[in-house]
Amino acid sequence: MSSPADNAVAIAQSLIRCPSVTPVDAGALDALARPLVAAGFACDRLTFTEDGTADVDNLVARIGGGAPHLCFAGHTDVVPPGDETSWAHAPFSAEIADGRLYGRGASDMKGAVACFAAAAIDYVAERGGQVPGTISLLITGDEEGTAINGTKKVLAWMEEANLVPDHCLVGEPSNPSVLGETIKIGRRGSLTGHLTVTGQQGHVAYPHLAANPVKGIVTALAKLYATPLDTGSPHFSPSNLEVTSIDVGNPATNVIPARAEAHFNIRFNDNHEAETLKAMLHESIGAALSGTALSFSLDFAPHGDAFVTKPGALDELLAEAVTEFTGKTPVLSTDGGTSDARFIKDYCPVVEFGLTTETIHKTDENAVLADLETLTAIYRRFIARYFETFGNANER
Amino acid sequence: MSSPADNAVAIAQSLIRCPSVTPVDAGALDALARPLVAAGFACDRLTFTEDGTADVDNLVARIGGGAPHLCFAGHTDVVPPGDETSWAHAPFSAEIADGRLYGRGASDMKGAVACFAAAAIDYVAERGGQVPGTISLLITGDEEGTAINGTKKVLAWMEEANLVPDHCLVGEPSNPSVLGETIKIGRRGSLTGHLTVTGQQGHVAYPHLAANPVKGIVTALAKLYATPLDTGSPHFSPSNLEVTSIDVGNPATNVIPARAEAHFNIRFNDNHEAETLKAMLHESIGAALSGTALSFSLDFAPHGDAFVTKPGALDELLAEAVTEFTGKTPVLSTDGGTSDARFIKDYCPVVEFGLTTETIHKTDENAVLADLETLTAIYRRFIARYFETFGNANER
Repeated sequence: MSSPADNAVAIAQSLIRCPSVTPVDAGALDALARPLVAAGFACDRLTFTEDGTADVDNLVARIGGGAPHLCFAGHTDVVPPGDETSWAHAPFSAEIADGRLYGRGASDMKGAVACFAAAAIDYVAERGGQVPGTISLLITGDEEGTAINGTKKVLAWMEEANLVPDHCLVGEPSNPSVLGETIKIGRRGSLTGHLTVTGQQGHVAYPHLAANPVKGIVTALAKLYATPLDTGSPHFSPSNLEVTSIDVGNPATNVIPARAEAHFNIRFNDNHEAETLKAMLHESIGAALSGTALSFSLDFAPHGDAFVTKPGALDELLAEAVTEFTGKTPVLSTDGGTSDARFIKDYCPVVEFGLTTETIHKTDENAVLADLETLTAIYRRFIARYFETFGNANER
Repeated sequence: MSSPADNAVAIAQSLIRCPSVTPVDAGALDALARPLVAAGFACDRLTFTEDGTADVDNLVARIGGGAPHLCFAGHTDVVPPGDETSWAHAPFSAEIADGRLYGRGASDMKGAVACFAAAAIDYVAERGGQVPGTISLLITGDEEGTAINGTKKVLAWMEEANLVPDHCLVGEPSNPSVLGETIKIGRRGSLTGHLTVTGQQGHVAYPHLAANPVKGIVTALAKLYATPLDTGSPHFSPSNLEVTSIDVGNPATNVIPARAEAHFNIRFNDNHEAETLKAMLHESIGAALSGTALSFSLDFAPHGDAFVTKPGALDELLAEAVTEFTGKTPVLSTDGGTSDARFIKDYCPVVEFGLTTETIHKTDENAVLADLETLTAIYRRFIARYFETFGNANER
């Protein structure tokens, strides 16, 4: 049998070769289930849908039974590669070069999914298929998208099936640049907004007969940029606004358009709640456009609130394993992007540790091969220490 | 012989009945040449083409010879009628109803072309075919389109043929709502720009690892808005910037995009020249983005310069005739959209007076019959006074 690290790289390659851009699965969950089933895991494939959303495939793989139940959560969907011709290594070819594994999802997070699968397979094999409790993998195809038909619905299904985990480890990339820097114990909230400014169409030569919504949207957004949301809080960095798109779509350079739209996302800390943020944005944009002939509307996608898992035994066990294989003492952090931990935190304590964020969502995303090896070792040690600790103590 | 006003309406009807949507002539220039030839005018038909453009028909009709040479410039092409079923009077049927002549081009500008032709024919007939100088009509079929194979090339042909006019009257609709309000003596320049800001793609949760070009383009445009170009000049209103589109096209609300684009148009007065404006914009945008990790490029479409025909004898003669038949004292203006006067100003002084802009480019475009009669009388008086004034003074 190949080493857990070799197995991790092989699984990661098979996952990357599936172009599983949300909500498409492209065979990724099958590619993951195959080695797990061979190791004795039972697999449930769960497909959820909802009006107006795409069907999404999910996977629950589990072995053993009863407490303690350690769940590894992750996703096999990826963000789009963008212009594929600007990649030096084709995004879905999983090429290895210069000690790195290249491809969309290598770090976010097919790499970590593969490392955990390989570590769990090795742990189970060493114990002749016997687990002193339960190991499960909750893998979704809807983390990078709307997250409606993914982890949230799988957790409800697990509750229904009496399979709620006692503890959860999410394998999202948690380290800013070097493996071992950071364990995440919570996240900022996330609020996505859609601003539409409506004016009056007209000829650029007669601006007094028109009302230009582009000027309105620039003025409103410039005002939002000029007003910092806060300066941070004890476990959290300052809240931040990013405008992700402005779109008018007017091909005629002599015509003032009737409408302009913008999309933006705010990552906010525990100084805010989503509803007060929404009200504040509405008031600020209204003030920026007051005195103009423009009107606006402001819609929001379902938001995620800020949360934190209080430091304790779970993050300590994980930190010990991280230090053992990296020599680093990881910082407990709440920075970075949302993850499905925001759903899991309602069921059990959850911590997050995975690869680095350096190349995620970028052209030529990759994972350092040595990091895949180290992460597999960390997960392998964490699994063993988890059952030694929580199995003995019967602690939840 | 019918009155000049009746003749004007008849010619206008024959022109409107030709569906001459740019670049199609549909017999319009023949319909105009027929009564001119009958009155003794010599007609040259000029067809120009250029790679990637359609063939366009043009007409130079002239009578007499030598100085002073008064040229009337206009066009017989029209903008499309749009949904013809929404017209109460079919766009190419030239129906008369409620004291109005209906049809596409009635005001812009087949009506004015017909008025001038009728006035000139009457003037020539009264003098037994003798003109104390030259009267010409420069009529193009490419004013509403790209204007590549129209007036510009006809003027080059006239220069080659030693037929450059001494003065020119353009019959474009010049009055916002009532005949007699406005004589145009120039136009603002027009500069269309395309700004691209390039940053670094990334995840919205890790803004320090990315560089958001949307923030850059908002900041740059907000700065341009905040800095008025000028406060106007003796003959011109203030220069004005309109951003006509901003486009990012990023569908992912958790991704900071790599690129943002904006298109804008500036109508500028004689405080500026296009090249200095371009340099100023470049500097201003550069300053707005300095200290960021963003880069930008700024491209410009071919521009039109601001021009003004200094008030003098030509507009005074025209204003006298306008006042005599309308009771109004026309304002000398440089506002509004471009016309072929932008090409003519390089050859001779040019003024513009025609019908009203109220219904142009709209459904059920029309011209008030009384306006056609009045405009014919104004043109008729202007022709006579032109030769009395410039013929005697031998002034150019």
